[in-house]
Amino acid sequence: MTQDIEQTQLTHPTIKDGWFREISDSSFPGQALALKVDRILDIVKSPFQDILVFKSTDYGNVLVLDGIIQLTERDEFAYQEMITHLPLMSHPNPKRVLIIGGGDGGVIREALKHKDVEKIVLVEIDETVIRLSKEYLPHMSSGFDDKRVEVHLGDGFKYLENLQAAESSNKFDVIITDSSDPEGPAVAFFQKTYFTLLSNALSDSNGIVITQASENVWLDINKLRELKSCISEVFPVVNCSYCMVPTYTSGQLGLMIASKNKEANLKTPTRSLPRKMENELFRYYNKEMHKSSFVLPNWAANFLGEE
Amino acid sequence: MTQDIEQTQLTHPTIKDGWFREISDSSFPGQALALKVDRILDIVKSPFQDILVFKSTDYGNVLVLDGIIQLTERDEFAYQEMITHLPLMSHPNPKRVLIIGGGDGGVIREALKHKDVEKIVLVEIDETVIRLSKEYLPHMSSGFDDKRVEVHLGDGFKYLENLQAAESSNKFDVIITDSSDPEGPAVAFFQKTYFTLLSNALSDSNGIVITQASENVWLDINKLRELKSCISEVFPVVNCSYCMVPTYTSGQLGLMIASKNKEANLKTPTRSLPRKMENELFRYYNKEMHKSSFVLPNWAANFLGEE
Repeated sequence: MTQDIEQTQLTHPTIKDGWFREISDSSFPGQALALKVDRILDIVKSPFQDILVFKSTDYGNVLVLDGIIQLTERDEFAYQEMITHLPLMSHPNPKRVLIIGGGDGGVIREALKHKDVEKIVLVEIDETVIRLSKEYLPHMSSGFDDKRVEVHLGDGFKYLENLQAAESSNKFDVIITDSSDPEGPAVAFFQKTYFTLLSNALSDSNGIVITQASENVWLDINKLRELKSCISEVFPVVNCSYCMVPTYTSGQLGLMIASKNKEANLKTPTRSLPRKMENELFRYYNKEMHKSSFVLPNWAANFLGEE
Repeated sequence: MTQDIEQTQLTHPTIKDGWFREISDSSFPGQALALKVDRILDIVKSPFQDILVFKSTDYGNVLVLDGIIQLTERDEFAYQEMITHLPLMSHPNPKRVLIIGGGDGGVIREALKHKDVEKIVLVEIDETVIRLSKEYLPHMSSGFDDKRVEVHLGDGFKYLENLQAAESSNKFDVIITDSSDPEGPAVAFFQKTYFTLLSNALSDSNGIVITQASENVWLDINKLRELKSCISEVFPVVNCSYCMVPTYTSGQLGLMIASKNKEANLKTPTRSLPRKMENELFRYYNKEMHKSSFVLPNWAANFLGEE
């Protein structure tokens, strides 16, 4: 009861008159998604970011980092499935998966669905995100205790530098960058040096990386083109995909996927499952969705060199 | 100058602190898209609905009917192209097109891109929408003066009843229902009697109809299933498509397309253009987008019988 009273008294600058509003004059000027708040569950100023968790009236619990919605319980599966299964289904035989960021645990949950994956390493800078996910998003964080999962608390960029310096043979088949947007702690994940580190951390020429592109084609397609161009300096094959997520700005988010193999066709999955099994394992991903996620409106396809 | 002062003084209940907010407790509880308002251009209470036109800071001019965004200049092409070219490219030889609603002129503009289309009849109940579109959305309403276009002011439902009663031979190859949502004047367009009238207004068994579904799979998939079931009582082939529109709720809108021909495969276009011509004519539609627009997340495909 005491706790309830305390929680009721929590306030956050993004919440006014019972509505959370996602406003960013730099990233998406002139538009804002609002979600109705049932109650604020937690507010933490971590050493890295401002973290807000609230229970919405219609989208379940919501995780917000630095004012930007990271996920809602109602629609999180779309992003988590696509950023995980696009690369894992494009790779012929993925055994070792590295996740940079992803402290909510959603990508771990999805990667664990692949029985052949032997090791999943997650490098998250902010342990508060993991703690809050375990507390308020149990369906996201259910995989942390799996014996195939190894968690490193620290900076993903430094982790990759150390891996390179150590000339470690513990490399990865697939690397998923599940970061927040390039404002704040994730800024280094959108630069060429980072993609060079990623390339060096891949086990062989079948290696695949994917990153959330922070933009979508509707919002600021120039930034998508810059990111693609930056990744193309390191990887011979780079493609723009996207996933539909109602609570992300414009209702979708771009995903940038790249392969070291210049013959790779990332738009068609290398492996696929019977539809019945797809239905059992996934709520969003299927082999047709894989292909469709690369089909962009003409103007965007042309601008991004994706036709 | 006088006019500017008057316009500055216009107020509308959906606009507060310089932001328009789209709120509907019945249609999309707990979520609201907000667009920043540069200035209100016009407000009209027509005999049929509340019409608001404002200039947004980042999405161009915006048309709002009964509090719901119908279009913004920045992203309108996605919906206009898809609701028009999906049926026209699925039909082997469309000559006569009927548009129910669509007073903004966007569907006319798109249908006119098909050189073989000889006649486009538009039936709009609210002449104010046409007038305001001509004034504030010139890029939408550019096709009204084309000699292939015929405009009837009146109720689409009654127009179809009269056509049926007159046993007219002036039937249609494609009928596009570009209405507002089923609250307000468009409620009759979501019922079986309407689809029976549509079926009878089609020239032959190649006839195709399409309607905006007012819902999307994320928002209230039950209503989509009900609508599909209702149309299926009249048409042997019915499929669920969608288009991405950032300023529609959840960033997308469902489209329901149906054919009288039980052998029809609406998911693959019957006709298609070379990519170069697609690029010249369309900003969104292409043959791959046609197919992709029918690919739904597993849970939605299964629920709607679309797998």
